[in-house]
Amino acid sequence: MSFSATCVPKTGRKRADGLLLGWQTAVVTTPGSAADSAVYAKRMARVRAAMAEQQIDTLLLSVGHDLPYLTGYTAMPLERLTMLVVPRDGDATMLIPALEAPRVAEQQGVFELFPWGETEDPTSIVGKLASGSKRVAIGDQMWARFLVELMPHLQGTEYTRAVDVVGALRMAKDPAEIDALALAGAAVDKIAGELQRGEIELVGRTEAQVSAELSRRIIAEGHEKVNFAIVAAGENAASPHHHAGSRVIREGEIVLCDFGGTMAGYCSDTTRCVFTGPIDPEVADAYAVLQTAQQVGVKAGAVGTPCEEVDRATRQVIVDGGYGEYFIHRTGHGIGMEEHEDPYIVEGNSLPLEAGHAYSIEPGIYVPGKWGMRLEDIVVATPSGPLALNASDHSLVSV
Amino acid sequence: MSFSATCVPKTGRKRADGLLLGWQTAVVTTPGSAADSAVYAKRMARVRAAMAEQQIDTLLLSVGHDLPYLTGYTAMPLERLTMLVVPRDGDATMLIPALEAPRVAEQQGVFELFPWGETEDPTSIVGKLASGSKRVAIGDQMWARFLVELMPHLQGTEYTRAVDVVGALRMAKDPAEIDALALAGAAVDKIAGELQRGEIELVGRTEAQVSAELSRRIIAEGHEKVNFAIVAAGENAASPHHHAGSRVIREGEIVLCDFGGTMAGYCSDTTRCVFTGPIDPEVADAYAVLQTAQQVGVKAGAVGTPCEEVDRATRQVIVDGGYGEYFIHRTGHGIGMEEHEDPYIVEGNSLPLEAGHAYSIEPGIYVPGKWGMRLEDIVVATPSGPLALNASDHSLVSV
Repeated sequence: MSFSATCVPKTGRKRADGLLLGWQTAVVTTPGSAADSAVYAKRMARVRAAMAEQQIDTLLLSVGHDLPYLTGYTAMPLERLTMLVVPRDGDATMLIPALEAPRVAEQQGVFELFPWGETEDPTSIVGKLASGSKRVAIGDQMWARFLVELMPHLQGTEYTRAVDVVGALRMAKDPAEIDALALAGAAVDKIAGELQRGEIELVGRTEAQVSAELSRRIIAEGHEKVNFAIVAAGENAASPHHHAGSRVIREGEIVLCDFGGTMAGYCSDTTRCVFTGPIDPEVADAYAVLQTAQQVGVKAGAVGTPCEEVDRATRQVIVDGGYGEYFIHRTGHGIGMEEHEDPYIVEGNSLPLEAGHAYSIEPGIYVPGKWGMRLEDIVVATPSGPLALNASDHSLVSV
Repeated sequence: MSFSATCVPKTGRKRADGLLLGWQTAVVTTPGSAADSAVYAKRMARVRAAMAEQQIDTLLLSVGHDLPYLTGYTAMPLERLTMLVVPRDGDATMLIPALEAPRVAEQQGVFELFPWGETEDPTSIVGKLASGSKRVAIGDQMWARFLVELMPHLQGTEYTRAVDVVGALRMAKDPAEIDALALAGAAVDKIAGELQRGEIELVGRTEAQVSAELSRRIIAEGHEKVNFAIVAAGENAASPHHHAGSRVIREGEIVLCDFGGTMAGYCSDTTRCVFTGPIDPEVADAYAVLQTAQQVGVKAGAVGTPCEEVDRATRQVIVDGGYGEYFIHRTGHGIGMEEHEDPYIVEGNSLPLEAGHAYSIEPGIYVPGKWGMRLEDIVVATPSGPLALNASDHSLVSV
């Protein structure tokens, strides 16, 4: 007998019976969320208010971080559709592949569960739940496949980004979230200290080997996931997103390490550079400018300051120091459940900082073919001023 | 001075000058691809033929596996857009964030590189490159955000899934790809053997601890990434996608281990069950049925057989054995660069198997509240019959 016939409703919103009822007693598996059901209900209410304000009829979330932010559940990044359907008024429904249903528990006042079977078409179920919607907001990281499949079911619908309704909420971290970011920050600071004290061998090893060691330490310090461990030596450091490779680290050069992971659901991200041996005067000169720029950037983050002003203040120090043409990226990015999220500290973003906004300040100087450097802390805007969550030595340490 | 002014063209298809030219000498970083530029050019030609056949004007690829399949380059899963724009006729262009440009090298006859700057809007550039397209095919795993942002730039365009043009190609693995799958399969077989010989301690440890040990071994055997390491003991094994948790493994129960990773760009995936102590007769009886079903499923995979027939043949054994209602999922999924991809071995999929199709055969029996079991090999369809890529002991071993 086939799955769909025995285990899940063929159509409509009738609940699963039989096998699935037993399965649904399993707990929600939410690695990392500090929030509980009441927090989710409150977040959902605020999302609905934002939907009403922006005349969004339905919000659709799947793979990505908005779903765990609102429900505590993270969708498996696979071809079987998981989708939270939130109408502006009325109950939210989470479609879930029936064989993943045991991973989730319904939450009263947050969402109902709708398991679908192996031979059903979940997209048409979403189409029915969202039918008549004029404006539908779509989670940023949903697989485009599901949107492409949904479109024929919703004629004349306009699509917008879910960040319009969830973004402002997610940007303003609550105290539990700031604690989580601080703990993750302390974990990578410990590794940065080990790097600066020479406890992580560099000279004679490849960038890839050092990257692997940083990754091991990120996990050992309590992260559940490594997000990146950039190790770039000498001229490779001039490429901001360098892929750590087979280049062997030598005496007398700069080594840029930019690393972070996810710990209890929240991200760490820090960059420190060290120099193998006595520091080259040209590099030291540039680093002095970089370090000042980074300090200025951190201090610029007063509540009410537009993000682009923070970028400008940081950039001006580097321009004045004579390295303006070599600072080739924005000053920073927001951070939280995602390693990069709103608000971005970039020219053109006039959003004023609010208390609870968390973001990186990471100016860099990159001289192609020669060397590169970057210095990065995570900062939280608070009513009493910007609070840096990273405290390892900010100077260019010789190892 | 800001980035966009110095480093990237503001508009049009003019190439970057200045700093970026130096950067572009860096090599393509393609972890895992065995193919070279000629292979990519050939694949691209076949994609264009499929586009012509299906009247698709433009193909858009970003995050996901179609992009490395066609170019060797994997997009960073971040908010800065990487997008390959392939017009049916004319040159392909890869938009890339300027600071990631050093990660990629242009490939003559495959694509040109178009780095975009920090304050530019890359979506509008894609809109210009694709303007006038009536049908646009979208990569499955592209972030929906980019499609939502693109839609206003392309009025009256119909969207389809890129799998329509790339899928058939990716399904039929070439000999180098089959070798890669076989090597990854041998690596997880080694771990399965260690499990079956009792070299991985089970009783007294939590599922999560055993899952972590499997993950370590997956990496130690040469995978660059762990995709999953399901460990489910006793009644937890009745949930096919169980999340390994704090449940302690006891004497006298079944332990289901389903694990795999990505090695040189291609995936492994195998499931073996062991029993801690003398095997319970009820479990042994069910396992005998499962093992026969899995053998029958492997043998059913002759070239030309519809995928659903393979599912039916496997399922029939379990139905005849009296456990039909407990086999609650499809028989298998395709595998390659992705852990789950076409072809799916499922009722309703009438696609005939072709030589080079690679897929799992993984029937299971799940009795809620009591126990569950699954047995999984990866199989390749060949002109001389189905070839199983996993060879560890298929029986229920007592450890």
